[in-house]
Amino acid sequence: MAAQKPSVPKGTRDFTPAEMSRRNFIFDTIRDVFRKYGFKQIETPAMENLSTLLGKYGEEGDKLLFRILNSGNFLKGVDQQNLENRDAPGIISRISKRGLRYDLTVPFARYVVQHRNEISFPFRRFQIQPVWRADNPQKGRYREFYQCDADMIGSESLVNEFELIRIIDEVFALLNLKVTIKINNRKILAGIAEVIGEPERIIDITVAIDKLEKIGEEKVREELKSKGLSGTALKRLDPVFGMMGNNVEKLEFLQTFLADSETGLAGIGEIHTLLGYLSTDPVQSAIELDITLARGLDYYTGAIIEVKSDEVSIGSICGGGRYDDLTGIFGMPGVSGVGISFGADRIYDVLQQLDKFPSTAEEQTKLLFVNFGENEVKYILPMLGRLRNEGVIAELYPESAKMKKQMTYADQSAIPYVALVGENEIQSDKITVKEMSTGNQEQHDYKELLQKLKS
Amino acid sequence: MAAQKPSVPKGTRDFTPAEMSRRNFIFDTIRDVFRKYGFKQIETPAMENLSTLLGKYGEEGDKLLFRILNSGNFLKGVDQQNLENRDAPGIISRISKRGLRYDLTVPFARYVVQHRNEISFPFRRFQIQPVWRADNPQKGRYREFYQCDADMIGSESLVNEFELIRIIDEVFALLNLKVTIKINNRKILAGIAEVIGEPERIIDITVAIDKLEKIGEEKVREELKSKGLSGTALKRLDPVFGMMGNNVEKLEFLQTFLADSETGLAGIGEIHTLLGYLSTDPVQSAIELDITLARGLDYYTGAIIEVKSDEVSIGSICGGGRYDDLTGIFGMPGVSGVGISFGADRIYDVLQQLDKFPSTAEEQTKLLFVNFGENEVKYILPMLGRLRNEGVIAELYPESAKMKKQMTYADQSAIPYVALVGENEIQSDKITVKEMSTGNQEQHDYKELLQKLKS
Repeated sequence: MAAQKPSVPKGTRDFTPAEMSRRNFIFDTIRDVFRKYGFKQIETPAMENLSTLLGKYGEEGDKLLFRILNSGNFLKGVDQQNLENRDAPGIISRISKRGLRYDLTVPFARYVVQHRNEISFPFRRFQIQPVWRADNPQKGRYREFYQCDADMIGSESLVNEFELIRIIDEVFALLNLKVTIKINNRKILAGIAEVIGEPERIIDITVAIDKLEKIGEEKVREELKSKGLSGTALKRLDPVFGMMGNNVEKLEFLQTFLADSETGLAGIGEIHTLLGYLSTDPVQSAIELDITLARGLDYYTGAIIEVKSDEVSIGSICGGGRYDDLTGIFGMPGVSGVGISFGADRIYDVLQQLDKFPSTAEEQTKLLFVNFGENEVKYILPMLGRLRNEGVIAELYPESAKMKKQMTYADQSAIPYVALVGENEIQSDKITVKEMSTGNQEQHDYKELLQKLKS
Repeated sequence: MAAQKPSVPKGTRDFTPAEMSRRNFIFDTIRDVFRKYGFKQIETPAMENLSTLLGKYGEEGDKLLFRILNSGNFLKGVDQQNLENRDAPGIISRISKRGLRYDLTVPFARYVVQHRNEISFPFRRFQIQPVWRADNPQKGRYREFYQCDADMIGSESLVNEFELIRIIDEVFALLNLKVTIKINNRKILAGIAEVIGEPERIIDITVAIDKLEKIGEEKVREELKSKGLSGTALKRLDPVFGMMGNNVEKLEFLQTFLADSETGLAGIGEIHTLLGYLSTDPVQSAIELDITLARGLDYYTGAIIEVKSDEVSIGSICGGGRYDDLTGIFGMPGVSGVGISFGADRIYDVLQQLDKFPSTAEEQTKLLFVNFGENEVKYILPMLGRLRNEGVIAELYPESAKMKKQMTYADQSAIPYVALVGENEIQSDKITVKEMSTGNQEQHDYKELLQKLKS
């Protein structure tokens, strides 16, 4: 067969050892914090039945699902007429019944319903797995990427929101990143739509307000007008554009502004309770009430959370919120949950840009034994085993290649020490150790070598 | 939308928290040993271009690939004639250009060629990721399962085989499993085919010999006869059937039997060298030369390794071997490598059957605070944070539900201690702690509580 120029599919990536160490640093940090808070790990299959996935992510989402071709004779159930007419929708439903996971939330909802009898609620689960989306790849957006999700399901208590915010704070503290945790509540947004007399237009209103920072007040007004918002409603919205100050001041304003909306006041109450919990055990990150926050509005019903880096200008690096009925679609209504999702790829970019990956994130071979030949190999092997058992990552160059080749390998692999054990060393029961950064050579016995490597 | 009865695709699985803890115990053990020996982790995408995968696993393998339907207008490039004629092969090559990873070896070969300029050879890589095969699911065989591979590439030295055997030994020692590591060498098999005068029939011969244990000598002879092996050749093969004894005795026999085959003698020499290395730093597991071992013969060119449990009758739980030209197909010939792959699912089954999972494999919440209401919650939250910072996995029941409900949750979640902090406890600055297994209740201050939980 002719040689092929190898590549990976568009939007997917290989991860090299150096990248893996840094990625593992992020995943391990997040996992450890999830565990510390009593979250239990689950995993779900990469493939789900399309009946589980379709219709859960909107029309646009359905298009972004990667579909698996049925195996065997995939044309079996397809109508001849459909084929002749090139009827794509008619054909696709017959030739593919599984798709790749698009996120971790819908598979989790499916899991909860399927395993309801084994689960003791409230259930705290975390899940760290890749997801796939047939999106157009661009900088920072991939077709395969990891999500790191924690959800609590089966409890309406705001203690859950508190715990998730503590988790966020702790993860970013451990990653040595300064962040602002923005919070909002869907009920406040519903209240605003209510008091300006446009309760049905909550989506249009919040989608527009969400752009306030980006496009400015005037453009937002124009957008709302073009969506058919009445002049009266727009005028009533004015004070919201002018809202300023810290959380307490914002809440005071909203208390008055939303005085006639029961829903709005309930939202304010929830924010008060949450801030109350946070005052008993404060977090390091800034907590900022931001009523322009509207992510996943069709989805969230209470708290909305979004995390921004204070140091790098990049989209949200973690987000989440409360959903009141995630499992209803699978036949289990009325189960409230709240969850967050860390965006590992963006966190990676932030750490990289700030040069904040700890050097320990890369686990390195500490010592390379040069290979002088069979006799030396047999002398070295037991010593190599002892060093490894002491926790020293060590290697023996597998071939008795030219010295220069072996040293180049040590150099390129960033191995800090090279051990030279030839006839003389075997005679004297010593090891010559070269420090690669300085070129210094010293003779040691095994004990001294071990001390040197462990220090 | 009507409620759906949720399920996962045939041959795939959810993993519950209890299963995840046990699986992580296996993965963590393997990963730690790989790292200890200086192997570096990589990851490759779940999807590969079909041009990378097709033709690498034989005709049967090609059929078992899961193919991804092209996104967007997947019918675009398909010939009308092909559609009308239901020409499956003609259609499939147009509607699908990516497939799911079938193993970790071919993606690794692709990786090596693609990243050849960043890699310093010899390269020790490990990779722990799921693979997918459209196999017929049956007990112990899944369509999605994890492989745990370690390979050294770019070195012909038998030190590599030695190190892989040490890794195998160490992994199973840490898993507390007794195993036999069977070794063979493709060159010995080639030598046998040579000296009986049927060098071209090496595959038929070894496939038949491979069944010796299962179907017995007579049936193997019949099979070989039916494959067209001459009477003379069969007669010459007789001593091989009769070969017995320990490794030294087997090698002595082979030394004579293969005296006229240069290849055969080279194979024996390799086994000698390997056993020589092992004698300098012996492993705990039995090492057994087994010339019936022929796994992946179309693939391996030197050492062949297979690991069997001594305690449970199950197929091989780890295997591997040397391949002389893995990357040639991607345009980089002459790179020799040797690798092993642990079968996590079978290892799981063995550990489960022997009840050998350590209890520490399950990370458990140690303490649940009962929730008596808002005042108590605010009192408890800072204490909860302190305990967690001390490494105690603790939870607060999020709602002030009925006592019975909260205790049932603790019971079902196997949480060993429950803390009761009501008005009295707040007054006296004490915590009432109930041990769930005995029902005993004691009062402690924070310090005593911490001591109790950490002991």
